Amino acid sequence: MRFQAPESLSEQIAQHLGQRIISGQLSPGERIQELKVAGELDVSRGSVREALLILERRHLIEIFPRRGAVVSQLTPDLVNSLYDIYIELLCMLGRTALERWSGPELSGMMNQINELQSLIGGSRNGTTDSTETIIEAGFEVMRRAYRLVDNPFLQETLENFKPAVSRTYYVALENFRGELSETERFFRQVADAVACANSQELEASIRAFGEHQRRQVLSILAPNNSQ
Amino acid sequence: MRFQAPESLSEQIAQHLGQRIISGQLSPGERIQELKVAGELDVSRGSVREALLILERRHLIEIFPRRGAVVSQLTPDLVNSLYDIYIELLCMLGRTALERWSGPELSGMMNQINELQSLIGGSRNGTTDSTETIIEAGFEVMRRAYRLVDNPFLQETLENFKPAVSRTYYVALENFRGELSETERFFRQVADAVACANSQELEASIRAFGEHQRRQVLSILAPNNSQ
Repeated sequence: MRFQAPESLSEQIAQHLGQRIISGQLSPGERIQELKVAGELDVSRGSVREALLILERRHLIEIFPRRGAVVSQLTPDLVNSLYDIYIELLCMLGRTALERWSGPELSGMMNQINELQSLIGGSRNGTTDSTETIIEAGFEVMRRAYRLVDNPFLQETLENFKPAVSRTYYVALENFRGELSETERFFRQVADAVACANSQELEASIRAFGEHQRRQVLSILAPNNSQ
Repeated sequence: MRFQAPESLSEQIAQHLGQRIISGQLSPGERIQELKVAGELDVSRGSVREALLILERRHLIEIFPRRGAVVSQLTPDLVNSLYDIYIELLCMLGRTALERWSGPELSGMMNQINELQSLIGGSRNGTTDSTETIIEAGFEVMRRAYRLVDNPFLQETLENFKPAVSRTYYVALENFRGELSETERFFRQVADAVACANSQELEASIRAFGEHQRRQVLSILAPNNSQ
């Protein structure tokens, strides 16, 4: 793999390493060595260093004075803190979108939900290939809502949490066979609430699904948690 | 003024420039020239460039491809977006602190509120010298709550919005004589709600004061708003 387009080189490196952390190819506690990454990707050490700072801001790694960069642990405390704020902000996003818009303006979101549902259907009969595709399609629904709500602060905050949240979704989808049906059910509820412009129902669905995912992720972490 | 301690040099430059934007010494639309700042502060251009990226993340400046860095406008849309998410997160912070803690654990917050009240009293009879001192003491109450809630994601998000919010507080306190009494009244309500461990009352007070400040700031922007 080669990297180009100098202006966003460190962002590209961050995306590449980030995806490996999210999908579990790089494990919690594993060291990421600047020099080694620079050699493997044929980029400068400075670009890797910048990429590591980006990943630190996205909570995927921690940087220690002597040890350098290490993939962050997915501890119960971290998962709880993340879900506490993420659920709150998603509720705000959904509620605000429905309070401000209705009917035709919501069609972009509805189309994206249909798209996601058919991807999940495809996954069940083997035509959708990856967990990653489904997770990305889910985030795409959120991005449609950004356009309606048009709050750059909210958007930026949710985007900033996306990598850490993706990592937990990945864990849930890879470990629980039933998660695909749960995800499908959740988005059907979202579609219903949007169709009826019922912001309370939407908020309740987001909260319930968020809490469900939190429990799934915590249940996987529990046996390995040595804190 | 000279800057030292290389590891956080760009952070120091960002704080210095940020404070000048918050207090209105640098006006919306004003250009910040890398080379000029580097010369004035006797630091490298690279450090200034990094500081400008920090200020962009804090929403105090915008960086344009050719024009470079410009102090961001305080538009009604920006103020509304900021207050929408900030009020929501402050409510979450207050609610969570009261749901998880009571009595002695809340004394740090109570002491800080008393401290703030006496600063406001001092300001009225001329012994507290600056708007900045009062704003900082207000944020210090928020920081006491961080320790109780212990959610690094929430803390980081609120801290990230702090400069942009400070800027609007500054505008309100400098333009409205009555704001000091309003601020005093708000913190008395906070102290009462904390003393009774009433998280609903706390949330209602935060929301009401947040909306009051939003209106104040918007009323100042309205006449100059040429959008």
